[in-house]
Amino acid sequence: MTLEQLAEKFAQVERERDQHLDDLKRLAAEFDNYRKRVARDQEGLVARANERLVKELLPVLDDLERALEAAAEHEEAKLEEGVRLVHRNLAELLRREGLAEIETEGRFDPHVHEALLAQPSEQEEGSVIDVVQKGYKLGDHVVRPARVVVSGGNGG
Amino acid sequence: MTLEQLAEKFAQVERERDQHLDDLKRLAAEFDNYRKRVARDQEGLVARANERLVKELLPVLDDLERALEAAAEHEEAKLEEGVRLVHRNLAELLRREGLAEIETEGRFDPHVHEALLAQPSEQEEGSVIDVVQKGYKLGDHVVRPARVVVSGGNGG
Repeated sequence: MTLEQLAEKFAQVERERDQHLDDLKRLAAEFDNYRKRVARDQEGLVARANERLVKELLPVLDDLERALEAAAEHEEAKLEEGVRLVHRNLAELLRREGLAEIETEGRFDPHVHEALLAQPSEQEEGSVIDVVQKGYKLGDHVVRPARVVVSGGNGG
Repeated sequence: MTLEQLAEKFAQVERERDQHLDDLKRLAAEFDNYRKRVARDQEGLVARANERLVKELLPVLDDLERALEAAAEHEEAKLEEGVRLVHRNLAELLRREGLAEIETEGRFDPHVHEALLAQPSEQEEGSVIDVVQKGYKLGDHVVRPARVVVSGGNGG
């Protein structure tokens, strides 16, 4: 290698070094900005997610208020119809959010049921014989287990 | 500069170049992982935010069902009391989420009111004389303007 070639090679490596350092600084700044934006976005995301749901609940609140007005005027049929409407709309809203009622037919399932007590019964031991409180799932996740009474067999 | 010093300097610049390139690759990989994690986290964040609210709505749904049972058994007082309870609990839940009713006393305010119509009235022109639908804010944000009737003055 001639001295000239060596000098050229040296300059080349220096350029590469400077280029990498520039890239590194630029990427670090970009990363930093991204992190800050993410922190801001996440707050906004949760707020917006809640806002959407809260907004969807306003008609439910309106209908409840109308039902209460009907009650104040002793319009019993209107009150009952109003409550039915509120229930239907709230249940539908929650279904759209992915909420599903937990099945309680058949055998007790500790993954989705909570046994409040066992009672002697003609039904097969270990089967659910009464539901004290409905249970719900959101997707695969049990939001609240169904509270049930389980058959302890006929005790015979 | 001796040839030896030059060689040493050259090796030094090469080491720096390689180091910067390593750092650059590592930071790029870290950034990439961070981006992926953020995407996953954000989905989870929204899902959890919604799940919390959905969960808080279950007692409201329970109380509505109890009210409907009372209605089915023609226990009117129990039905009315149940509706009052549901309304109180839902309103309280929404208040905890930051929901606040929009004031409608006094002058029409286009930022938070929507004028459905203007009516001749003894009240000062431009004042709100009736509320057709309540409006709500979430923090500083108008979720739904209050729909109101505005005084057009006494038309005299």
